[in-house]
Amino acid sequence: MTGHSHSHPSSSETTAFRVGFQGEIGAYSEEALAALYPGATMVAYTSFEVAFEALTSGDVDRAVLPIENSLFGSVHQNYDLLLEHDLIIVGQVQLRIRHQLMAPAGAMLDSIERVFSHPQAIGQCRDFLRSTLSGADVQPTYDTAGAAKKVAQEAIPTQAAIASKAAAAEYGLTILASDIESNHANYTRFLALARPDSDPNQALHPDAMDTGEFRTSLVYTQRENVPGGLFKSLAVFALRDIDLLKIESRPLVGSPGQYVFYLDLSGHQDDEPVRNAVDHLQEIAARVRVLGSFRSGRIVG
Amino acid sequence: MTGHSHSHPSSSETTAFRVGFQGEIGAYSEEALAALYPGATMVAYTSFEVAFEALTSGDVDRAVLPIENSLFGSVHQNYDLLLEHDLIIVGQVQLRIRHQLMAPAGAMLDSIERVFSHPQAIGQCRDFLRSTLSGADVQPTYDTAGAAKKVAQEAIPTQAAIASKAAAAEYGLTILASDIESNHANYTRFLALARPDSDPNQALHPDAMDTGEFRTSLVYTQRENVPGGLFKSLAVFALRDIDLLKIESRPLVGSPGQYVFYLDLSGHQDDEPVRNAVDHLQEIAARVRVLGSFRSGRIVG
Repeated sequence: MTGHSHSHPSSSETTAFRVGFQGEIGAYSEEALAALYPGATMVAYTSFEVAFEALTSGDVDRAVLPIENSLFGSVHQNYDLLLEHDLIIVGQVQLRIRHQLMAPAGAMLDSIERVFSHPQAIGQCRDFLRSTLSGADVQPTYDTAGAAKKVAQEAIPTQAAIASKAAAAEYGLTILASDIESNHANYTRFLALARPDSDPNQALHPDAMDTGEFRTSLVYTQRENVPGGLFKSLAVFALRDIDLLKIESRPLVGSPGQYVFYLDLSGHQDDEPVRNAVDHLQEIAARVRVLGSFRSGRIVG
Repeated sequence: MTGHSHSHPSSSETTAFRVGFQGEIGAYSEEALAALYPGATMVAYTSFEVAFEALTSGDVDRAVLPIENSLFGSVHQNYDLLLEHDLIIVGQVQLRIRHQLMAPAGAMLDSIERVFSHPQAIGQCRDFLRSTLSGADVQPTYDTAGAAKKVAQEAIPTQAAIASKAAAAEYGLTILASDIESNHANYTRFLALARPDSDPNQALHPDAMDTGEFRTSLVYTQRENVPGGLFKSLAVFALRDIDLLKIESRPLVGSPGQYVFYLDLSGHQDDEPVRNAVDHLQEIAARVRVLGSFRSGRIVG
């Protein structure tokens, strides 16, 4: 249960505020964490489950976890874990995913013979690999930060990794080519999670408190055999001119024909129209849970 | 562009019908392919993009690709590729993902010291690993079939992999423990794709032709600044008592406030109410594309 902790290099003071994330040090999640909680002590966990358990038990004060990627969609596992734990969303940040080619100091771009990275990152950098490194042998690894770590440890100047800027900094690698992804519209939305008794704004970067409109996330399950149930449930928002920012259905496992819906709407859960709409939704739905209200925040990276 | 081809072991006849999939031989996709096109020549591609290109150019007759997993959500990349290519959906199958612990012949469960698999599969088999193999060293690999291949090639009796039954068969490994995943509700929905001029039923397994209701998939983009646009677009189906089976919104990159919607509905695109609803949707939406009508088919695996 104990994560691997790591003080953020930009923080000189000693702080007791601990924030969990999933992955290795140098992973993209670490960049999102730093944007939301600058100066916090970062605690790395090997899986989302363990990060949720650590936050629930008080081992960390917050957790920062990915919920949606513009190319790969929602991280359903984290929605499931949100439903299984009594936690709230207190902030969000969107991170642009930029891939860097990195190698040990002294390496040169035209001498690279072997490249390591996660298969998704390799796919995203396909055009660069074909044009600039067409002769190189490309080796898949299980994560981008792990590829950077390996290249740093082996210190062979003909070997490079594709990973984040944070990974290059963490493992002391030199960036040989920047932003080498073919599709630059690759964003991951991260949520800041807290226990329900927390001050939502504690230690949060001002931009996550003040920037953008309020957004409310909720999850609901339809009652069985309500014809047009989805349409009726959306009517409670449309009738009050509340904009929807996200909607996604998932079949409820074991209950054919029943669905769970994830909905993000514009506004705060304490606004009167939103409060009325949620009350109205409870008349129609089997189960409604408001996950939190938070500012839409910045795009970083 | 040329994929790695592979005759299905259960097929004794020589057939010219070629079906592409993504991944290594022994991957879960291969099981879905065999359920939809028994006896076809399977052609493995390293990425979804290459599989789409191969189908479009005529290198294969069909492609079978994942579109949605019950734990991890939609495979947005394949939705994007569907929009970029002129292809149609002609069938689907749901595959239950079951993980097997496998090792070289002669290995015994209580002698296993090291286990290789993809991090997602490792996470899903966490309870088994903690209880039965608590002393083993667990090593992540970039895919499950690759883990099986490695364990087979190295042939060390203390090493095991977590992968599919098909991988055990392909690499001649013995299954030491079956269905070791903690959550058995892990299904992936695969689509069969064809060029638009194809006979949709050619070579398709009868269960994919006859089993279940018809389902129609479509994608549409909202017009800018239509208040309550989502609600209105769903009204075209609700007003005609057409059930929705899936709805998912994605922000349109570069157009803040605009969304693209993926919708699955009950019925065939040639049914009169569905035809009328799609015509009506075209009055409201900026762009509508019907991706295909097909039976909901079986659950296999």
